[in-house]
Amino acid sequence: MSMLITGIRELVTCDDTVENARGRTNADLTRGLGVVPDAAVVIGGGSEDSAPAVEWIGPADQAPAADWAIDLGGKAVLPGFVDSHAHLVFAGDRSAEFAARMTGQPYDGGGIALTMAATREAGDAELRDLLAKRVGEMRSQGTTTVEIKSGYGLDVEHEVRALRLAREVTPETTFLGAHVVPPDRRGAGGREAYLDLVCGEMLAACAPYARWVDVFCEPASAHAFDGEESRRVLEAGRDAGLELRVHGNQLGHGPGVQLAVELGAASVDHCTYLSDEDVEALAGSGTVATLLPGVEFSTRQPYPDARRLFDAGVDVALATDCNPGTCSSSSMPLMIALAVREMGMTPAEALRAATVGGARALRRDDVGRIRVGQRADLAVVDAPSVLHIPYRVGVPIVRALEV
Amino acid sequence: MSMLITGIRELVTCDDTVENARGRTNADLTRGLGVVPDAAVVIGGGSEDSAPAVEWIGPADQAPAADWAIDLGGKAVLPGFVDSHAHLVFAGDRSAEFAARMTGQPYDGGGIALTMAATREAGDAELRDLLAKRVGEMRSQGTTTVEIKSGYGLDVEHEVRALRLAREVTPETTFLGAHVVPPDRRGAGGREAYLDLVCGEMLAACAPYARWVDVFCEPASAHAFDGEESRRVLEAGRDAGLELRVHGNQLGHGPGVQLAVELGAASVDHCTYLSDEDVEALAGSGTVATLLPGVEFSTRQPYPDARRLFDAGVDVALATDCNPGTCSSSSMPLMIALAVREMGMTPAEALRAATVGGARALRRDDVGRIRVGQRADLAVVDAPSVLHIPYRVGVPIVRALEV
Ligand SMILES: [Zn+2]
Ligand SMILES: [Zn+2]
Repeated sequence: MSMLITGIRELVTCDDTVENARGRTNADLTRGLGVVPDAAVVIGGGSEDSAPAVEWIGPADQAPAADWAIDLGGKAVLPGFVDSHAHLVFAGDRSAEFAARMTGQPYDGGGIALTMAATREAGDAELRDLLAKRVGEMRSQGTTTVEIKSGYGLDVEHEVRALRLAREVTPETTFLGAHVVPPDRRGAGGREAYLDLVCGEMLAACAPYARWVDVFCEPASAHAFDGEESRRVLEAGRDAGLELRVHGNQLGHGPGVQLAVELGAASVDHCTYLSDEDVEALAGSGTVATLLPGVEFSTRQPYPDARRLFDAGVDVALATDCNPGTCSSSSMPLMIALAVREMGMTPAEALRAATVGGARALRRDDVGRIRVGQRADLAVVDAPSVLHIPYRVGVPIVRALEV
Repeated sequence: MSMLITGIRELVTCDDTVENARGRTNADLTRGLGVVPDAAVVIGGGSEDSAPAVEWIGPADQAPAADWAIDLGGKAVLPGFVDSHAHLVFAGDRSAEFAARMTGQPYDGGGIALTMAATREAGDAELRDLLAKRVGEMRSQGTTTVEIKSGYGLDVEHEVRALRLAREVTPETTFLGAHVVPPDRRGAGGREAYLDLVCGEMLAACAPYARWVDVFCEPASAHAFDGEESRRVLEAGRDAGLELRVHGNQLGHGPGVQLAVELGAASVDHCTYLSDEDVEALAGSGTVATLLPGVEFSTRQPYPDARRLFDAGVDVALATDCNPGTCSSSSMPLMIALAVREMGMTPAEALRAATVGGARALRRDDVGRIRVGQRADLAVVDAPSVLHIPYRVGVPIVRALEV
């Protein structure tokens, strides 16, 4: 079975081997996006064992026949977004904490302790429903690949459960037992004992459900992990067969970036505070810098300077960090708009960071681009150009194409 | 026929006569919103001559019977947003102009001249379709009342047409012939002749289709209107039976606010640059200050200081200014999030500004609150609290309730 999609005014492939059509409208502004104007796409295959794949791309007037056809009537199409950083397995409501923080009102809702307690209390069915709703919400905003971390269970039973449930909806599951030192373990000796648990029994139990290991690495603090602690977590994860990613340099000039590069992590995420040495290390590495501007929006932290990273030749990805505490937005279109408004990215750079950039941060070759032979994960924009994504900020004009 | 709506976890009435339930969750953070927790609403009536009205509000366990019933399953409900400032009658695409502006690239797409030309060229059917699509997009984001301005026709025929089409979808139509001096009339004598036209033949032809007259009042410039010119437009409009509103103080410390207050305008919109005298004048007046943070987002201008206005006792509204040049967002939820993040509003203040504040800016008593006897214009939030509107920035969780 094959499906022909026509009526694509602007097909953004994000494929470097496709040269932008010359002389067309917006050619300068969409450079690097591999645009095919007035295009068609043929999708085929798809079975229980394999996802539908792209079989043909080209000008609409050269399209081959197919079993089915749909006409989008002049819309833009781009690769589904790859959200390479999200925390979606949780229960509880922390909207009041956000409201209080934004307005300087005193509030002690308990922060992550509240999420941990509510998540542990929730039944499997409730968590599965919440997770499905969140993944569906992301699809409705154009996201077709999502990474999901544990990190609100913070004991063996509940970390395993989080990864088991996440694995039901994505192969990109990340063990984040080292999210924080749990609130009830910050006393004398508790911290060391927790780290032993994370690197020992918890890791062993979680590894079968995880592709990645991650750690919240910051300058020494009560709740995050310092450079040596983070190294221990990452090396233990690697020894257990997991690949590496790091939360780093969010709250200050920490050791996260250097550690991620040294250990060959796929990505270091946040990168809000970077020294020149950090930028240099990233530029020469296979580690992607993943920026999460929803966090800066929702916490009023300063935005990272994406321009500096691009100018140095660093690979950059954009993701949501969707989580109950520091960014409750699951909207990749908003992240693109914030990247353009606040972080010095061009629209084309932001769109690449949200697609092929995210794929690179997950070391995936089969998503993030529209290319013959790759997964047919497409997003449709209800507008003639992808430039409308930042232009029409806040308006829900992007959705995953259901084929 | 009557309809009972249950499953309302948080009913935000924005009605000052409803006291927030004490001691409940978020009571401090929702002060001023007139919250009824675990509520029900009964809606009745509705015919060709009159909109459905609210017949009963109260705790769900005391709700009367009705002909039909729906259960929202624990969502928040608030008054539909009142977007008191929008420019929706236009054709053409200026997304490339936005992209170029955001990235400092040279671009001369023609700006408003492009919109004027494309709008004049479009047929009635095309403009009507575009308008219907935009109003529908707004409803899908929770907006149930919208003001629509002319101002891209800029000759008698096309200004009349814009208002005639706008009147088909809203009673809140605004004659804005004095949007700019048209690009082709900026030569010697052209400006004066255009102003004569606006205040003479154009006004006479447009007045039957308009409730309001508006003017783009700024410090002397080639395209906007100065204080004396603006006074002439507003007084002519008033003499023709229209009520007054003003675009003022967007680009600098202009005379718009003082003029609006002096002439008793319902609202002065933008208010980006305000002197202490401007704030004082607004505080003692019946003129609302309408803030449009989507414009500051999309043009990188500094945001107005809403805190200063609230602290001085000024009535404040929030609107989108949805237009092709300076803010292409139609999202009131985004405006609420920006007001909280960037302008010093509390979530409760922003929610009031987007509902009852907008109603006041349109001198409407029948919308912007949920109250027995008033229009049943309700918006539903796919979350247990309206605090999720700024918390979940960018995610489409608000929609108008279709009854
Ligand atoms: Zn994170
Ligand atoms: Zn305007």
